[in-house]
Amino acid sequence: MNRITEKLLAAVSNWTGVPRNAAYNIREDGQCAGRQSTAHIRITSKTDKPGIDITVAPGTRGEQVYIPACVTHSAENDLVYNDFYIGEDADVTIVAGCGVHSDGEGEARHNGVHRFFLKKGARVRYLEKHIGTGGGTGARVIDPVTEVEQAEGSTMEMETTQIGGVDSTRRTMKAVLAAGAKLRVRERILTDGEQRAETDFVVELNGNDCGCDLISRSVAKGQSHQAFRSLIRGNCRCTGHSECDAIIIGNGTVNAAPELGANHADAALIHEAAIGKIAGEQILKLCTLGLTEEEAEAKIVEGFLR
Amino acid sequence: MNRITEKLLAAVSNWTGVPRNAAYNIREDGQCAGRQSTAHIRITSKTDKPGIDITVAPGTRGEQVYIPACVTHSAENDLVYNDFYIGEDADVTIVAGCGVHSDGEGEARHNGVHRFFLKKGARVRYLEKHIGTGGGTGARVIDPVTEVEQAEGSTMEMETTQIGGVDSTRRTMKAVLAAGAKLRVRERILTDGEQRAETDFVVELNGNDCGCDLISRSVAKGQSHQAFRSLIRGNCRCTGHSECDAIIIGNGTVNAAPELGANHADAALIHEAAIGKIAGEQILKLCTLGLTEEEAEAKIVEGFLR
Repeated sequence: MNRITEKLLAAVSNWTGVPRNAAYNIREDGQCAGRQSTAHIRITSKTDKPGIDITVAPGTRGEQVYIPACVTHSAENDLVYNDFYIGEDADVTIVAGCGVHSDGEGEARHNGVHRFFLKKGARVRYLEKHIGTGGGTGARVIDPVTEVEQAEGSTMEMETTQIGGVDSTRRTMKAVLAAGAKLRVRERILTDGEQRAETDFVVELNGNDCGCDLISRSVAKGQSHQAFRSLIRGNCRCTGHSECDAIIIGNGTVNAAPELGANHADAALIHEAAIGKIAGEQILKLCTLGLTEEEAEAKIVEGFLR
Repeated sequence: MNRITEKLLAAVSNWTGVPRNAAYNIREDGQCAGRQSTAHIRITSKTDKPGIDITVAPGTRGEQVYIPACVTHSAENDLVYNDFYIGEDADVTIVAGCGVHSDGEGEARHNGVHRFFLKKGARVRYLEKHIGTGGGTGARVIDPVTEVEQAEGSTMEMETTQIGGVDSTRRTMKAVLAAGAKLRVRERILTDGEQRAETDFVVELNGNDCGCDLISRSVAKGQSHQAFRSLIRGNCRCTGHSECDAIIIGNGTVNAAPELGANHADAALIHEAAIGKIAGEQILKLCTLGLTEEEAEAKIVEGFLR
């Protein structure tokens, strides 16, 4: 494992060396740089395409899986397919950060296609952190695709964060929920300079009493642009909520297009969005406490993206 | 003027005979069935296409203009272009209802393209009511297009209502606002049976301190379908708000897609949407007051669309 990978791993998944009881697979420039299965969590390579299958045995409780991926130089275009099979009533945390380092002129790109199959009553906490580093002029690109199939009574909580350094990202998520399933997504994105970030959520609420809650918070600084699109389709007795709030700083621009499709009289769907700059009085208040204007702004952004 | 027109006029514009001091133009099956100009409001026929020019003199205060249009039989496809030129600091009310009556198998259709040019400080209250009547199997179709150009400090208030009988409608509105201009839109739509209603708003907020407020309320009963789309673009220091709330009854379906585009750090944009059925407890409450379940539902819908 090279130095850059170690740094990226620490940033995206709080990696401090091989975890003792957790399953893990580290992907470095398209290769496996380390793997460990446990008694309940099996990680195997795919035979037909790049990527791994992660199989969590039914009833597994409180275990962690780390599957960070790093691209450590320019002119690398990594594409990986990871499938997660979560057994009945299992309850696990999956950490899937991704770091992309560019040191030259070529593009450093990581595309991860993650598919989740949650069996009845399964519960997954999925953490995904994206970061770009390095002084190269080549663009750092991360285009993650997430597909989720939730069986009855399953729960998926997804936290996805992109705090800096990624020049271009297009995030796509599709989820299909059966009866009683719950999906909760928290997205945090900060862009600066000439960066671009796009998000696309599509959620199909298919089983009675299922529900989803999407919350996206973004900060667009510099000349950066962010676009948020979501579509929640209520096809049964269900609840859906989406919320996208954005702060604009400098010449950043933001587009928010959350769509609701109510195809059933018992579908209750809601969304809210608010885009604007930080209120002057908020800055002023922190300045009177001794902060400079820049420090005040940073503090507010930090709180907003927490 | 035929009997059907008289009935339609009463329904769409509270017409009770020729108004004494108001300007008016009545359109019946593609023809002019009556017209009156006033000292300050001139109505003239277009020479290049069907329709009229309505010119309101600068400083005109508290006057009304009635321009209802009726289609009174099937197999009629009426298309009209009406342009409104509102002089500086004028303050007028325009009533532009539209009634479509179908008695046979052919489609009865009215397409009105209304363009508004508001000069500096002008203020318009624009009321538009749409209705379909008659026992014919031919579809009643109304596809209104509204285009608004608002100069500095002008105000446009638009109230548009479609309460029943229109089988298909596609409502398109575009507005461009200069500095300090205000746009306020209230839309109320009820569909039933196999009816379809689509709404498309595009608002460009171009001048500092301009603002818009779009509120759409809809009730979809039977097998009917409604789709609401809006796009508010904040290109300067401005405020934009859109809200679309819908009640579903029976097998009605509703799609809401309000989009916000913040292209400036001082653009403050907000939207909200909520779709669902009437809460059981609301019905129950009215039933304990002696109403039947159907009466309670009708009461709630009436309040919601008021």
